[in-house]
Amino acid sequence: MFTVCCEAHTTKVSRNANMAKLQAGYLFPEIARRRSAHMLKYPDGQVISLGIGDTTEPIPEVITFGMAKKAHALSTLEGYSGYGAEQGEKQLRAAIASTYYGDLSLEESDIFVSDGAKSDISRLQVMFGSNVTMAVQDPSYPAYVDSSVILGQTGQFQKDVEKYRKIEYMKCNPENGFFPDLSTVSRTDIIFFCSPNNPTGNAATREQLTRLVQFAKDNGSILVYDSAYAMYISDDSPRSIFEIPGAKEVAIEVSSFSKYAGFTGVRLGWTVVPKELLYSDGFPVAKDFNRIVCTTFNGASNISQAGGLACLSPEGLEAMHKVVGFYQENTNIIMETFTSLGFSVYGGKNAPYVWVHFPGQSSWDVFSEILEKTHVVTTPGSGFGPAGDGFIRVSAFGHRGNVLEACKRFKQLYK
Amino acid sequence: MFTVCCEAHTTKVSRNANMAKLQAGYLFPEIARRRSAHMLKYPDGQVISLGIGDTTEPIPEVITFGMAKKAHALSTLEGYSGYGAEQGEKQLRAAIASTYYGDLSLEESDIFVSDGAKSDISRLQVMFGSNVTMAVQDPSYPAYVDSSVILGQTGQFQKDVEKYRKIEYMKCNPENGFFPDLSTVSRTDIIFFCSPNNPTGNAATREQLTRLVQFAKDNGSILVYDSAYAMYISDDSPRSIFEIPGAKEVAIEVSSFSKYAGFTGVRLGWTVVPKELLYSDGFPVAKDFNRIVCTTFNGASNISQAGGLACLSPEGLEAMHKVVGFYQENTNIIMETFTSLGFSVYGGKNAPYVWVHFPGQSSWDVFSEILEKTHVVTTPGSGFGPAGDGFIRVSAFGHRGNVLEACKRFKQLYK
Repeated sequence: MFTVCCEAHTTKVSRNANMAKLQAGYLFPEIARRRSAHMLKYPDGQVISLGIGDTTEPIPEVITFGMAKKAHALSTLEGYSGYGAEQGEKQLRAAIASTYYGDLSLEESDIFVSDGAKSDISRLQVMFGSNVTMAVQDPSYPAYVDSSVILGQTGQFQKDVEKYRKIEYMKCNPENGFFPDLSTVSRTDIIFFCSPNNPTGNAATREQLTRLVQFAKDNGSILVYDSAYAMYISDDSPRSIFEIPGAKEVAIEVSSFSKYAGFTGVRLGWTVVPKELLYSDGFPVAKDFNRIVCTTFNGASNISQAGGLACLSPEGLEAMHKVVGFYQENTNIIMETFTSLGFSVYGGKNAPYVWVHFPGQSSWDVFSEILEKTHVVTTPGSGFGPAGDGFIRVSAFGHRGNVLEACKRFKQLYK
Repeated sequence: MFTVCCEAHTTKVSRNANMAKLQAGYLFPEIARRRSAHMLKYPDGQVISLGIGDTTEPIPEVITFGMAKKAHALSTLEGYSGYGAEQGEKQLRAAIASTYYGDLSLEESDIFVSDGAKSDISRLQVMFGSNVTMAVQDPSYPAYVDSSVILGQTGQFQKDVEKYRKIEYMKCNPENGFFPDLSTVSRTDIIFFCSPNNPTGNAATREQLTRLVQFAKDNGSILVYDSAYAMYISDDSPRSIFEIPGAKEVAIEVSSFSKYAGFTGVRLGWTVVPKELLYSDGFPVAKDFNRIVCTTFNGASNISQAGGLACLSPEGLEAMHKVVGFYQENTNIIMETFTSLGFSVYGGKNAPYVWVHFPGQSSWDVFSEILEKTHVVTTPGSGFGPAGDGFIRVSAFGHRGNVLEACKRFKQLYK
C-alpha cells in the first residue's frame, strides 16, 4: 500500500502546565539511567548499587508462604475472592492497628491499606487539591515535591536557588541537627515530614516532634508524616507521630512494608487518617480520603495483603526484625568506613541511610567521581533538594559481600 | 488521668472544593451499603449479588501456580527482586504488546502495566490536570466522571438534570443503538469511551469507531478508550481502538486482567499510550504519562505481574477463554430470562452485562423492588448517569447456581 507522506497530527489538547514545571526526570529513574550508561562504558566494571534504597535480601519464608498459600487458594471455590474493600481487608487493617498503634487508641477504621507509600502520597495530594500550600524538609524524598508540582500547588522552578516557588523548604543540616528551625518556617497548609528521614537518616526526637505537632496545631496545618523507616529506629525516638499527644488532630501517617519485609516489589503500605483530623469547616479529612481511595484505587493486591498479614504474625514480626537487623549491620559497616576515612557522617543510627558530607563539592560531581572510580552507585544529595548539595546518600540495602566490597573501594579511593 | 474538656481542634486547611462537589458515595460502595442493610433486615434472605461486576470463579491453576511460584522465588537469593520498573516488567509489557496488539505495530514501550484500569484512569486525569474539558458516554462507568470532578475539570452538580456542569454527556440509548449522535456532541479535550460498554453491554462497531476516531481527530481531542471487556466480544467488533486506522494519533487505551482471569482482587491492568499521540505543542503524551507513573506509582505487584505472564502463556490464554466463556453462558441465561418475561433487553452479546429496560420507572425504585422481593442485588442504571434511568444492569458474574436461582426469582416476580 502507498501512503502519502504527511505531517504528524497533533491534538488540540494543551499539555498540563504543571507537568512542564517538573525538572528533568524523577530522581531514581535518572540514577538508573546513569548506572546503565556506566555499565555500557565499563562492561566489566562490577557495578555495586548503593543508590536507590532497594531491598536486596530474600523475603522470609514465613511471609512468602502466606502469599503462595493465598495464590493457590484463589484457584479454589472456597478460597477465591474478587474485589476487596478499597481500604484493605478488615483483618489486615486490624492487625496493623494493633501491631503498630496498639497503645495509641487508633482503630482498624483509621487504617487505609495501600499499594505503597509513594502511591498514597500522590492520593493525598489529589485529595488536598491545587489550592493548598506546602512545606517539606530540605532535603527530602522527591515524591513530596514532585507530586505537589503535578497537582499545581507550586509555582515555577527557580534555577538559581533550585527551588519551586510557593513551596516552603525547611532546611535540615548538621548545624540544626537535621531538624528545621521552626521559628523561620512560614505557615503552610500541609507539612510533609519524614522521620527517620530519607535521605539524611536522622530520626527526630520526642521533644522535636512535640514541637512540630505544636507548630502544626498553632498554624492550623496538616502534618503528613512519613514513617516508612520506623522499624530502623534503635533508640527511643518515636516510631509514630501518634506517640505525640494531640497528633491525631493534626497528622496523617504514611507507612510501608517495603523496607521491613523486602516488599519493594510486592507493594504494600498503609496510611493512618485519624477521625479527629478536621478541615477548617469541621469536615473529617478521613471521609474525603475514603472517597479518594474508593474512586481512584481498588485496593492493594489480595496476595500482597496476605503477605502483610503473615508479616504481622509473631513469626513474621520476628523475621522482619531479622531483615531490619541485617541492613542495620550493613549501615554500621558503611558508617565505620566513612568515619575512618575522616568524613563527617550522619544518619545511620536510626535509618538504613548514611549521609556523608563532602563540604564545598557538588553532589553530582561526587556521585560521578565515585561511580567512575569505584563503580559504586550512590545518590547525590542535591537530588533531594538544594540543602542536600555537598552530601552523598549511601544506602545500606545490599548483599553483605557487596557492601564490604564497596567499602573496600571507598577506602582505596579516599585513603 | 484527668482531661479538661475542650472543643475539638480544627485545622485551618480548606477542604478541597472539588471533593465537596461529589455526590454521595462512589456508586459501588453505596450498593454494598444497601446490600448490607438488606442482609441485616433479612438475615435468612439468601442474597445473590449480580450488582457490582465482581468475578466469582476461581482463577485457573496455571495462573495461580505462576503467582505462587513467584512468591516462593522471592524467598531465594536468585529469585528475589525489589523495585521493578514503574512501567512494568519488560517481559510482561512485551507479552501484552504481542498478544493483544501484535498486528497493530504497537511496541513493548507503548504499554504501561498498572494495578488496574481504575487506578490508571485516575492517573490519566492527574496527568491531564484541571484545565481540560471532557466528554463521557451517558451512561458510563462512574470513575470517569468522579475522577474528573476530583481533578477540578467540572463545575457543580446540577440536581435537576443530574449532570455536572462542563462535562459533555453523550447520550447512549436504544434509539441511537447506544452510540452517541456525534453531530450533537460539543468538542472537548478528552473523550472517555468504553466498549464493550459498562453498563449497557453494547460494543461499538468498526464503522462507529471509525467515525469516533475521525471525530476526535477533527476536534483535536484525545480519546481515552476503555477496553476492559474486549475478550467478551463474540462478533467482529474491534477489540482495540488501535484496529482503527489513525487511532494512534488520537487514542489511549486502558485495559485490565480483572474480568478475563478473575484478577479483580489480584490487581493488574495496562494502559497503551502510543508515541504518536501529541499535545498541541507537539509534546508526546507518553512522556508525561511516563513521568506520572514514575512519580505517583511504583509498579504493580511483582507477584501479580507473574500472574499476568502466566495469563498470556498458551495455557493461560486458553484458561482465560474458558473463564470468559463461562460468564458468557451466564449472560445468555440472564438475557433469555428477561427476554422471555417480555422485557426489552440490551447488551449481553459482547459483554458480561445485561441492560434491562423498565420504561418510565426510576432505576433506584426498580433496584429496591428487586432487592426487597427477590433478594437479588443489581445495579440501578441511573447510577451510571442520567440516561441510565429506567434501566437496571444485571451482571453475569456469579456462580451458575446463583445465576439460575436469581433468574428463577426474576421469573416469579415478573411472571
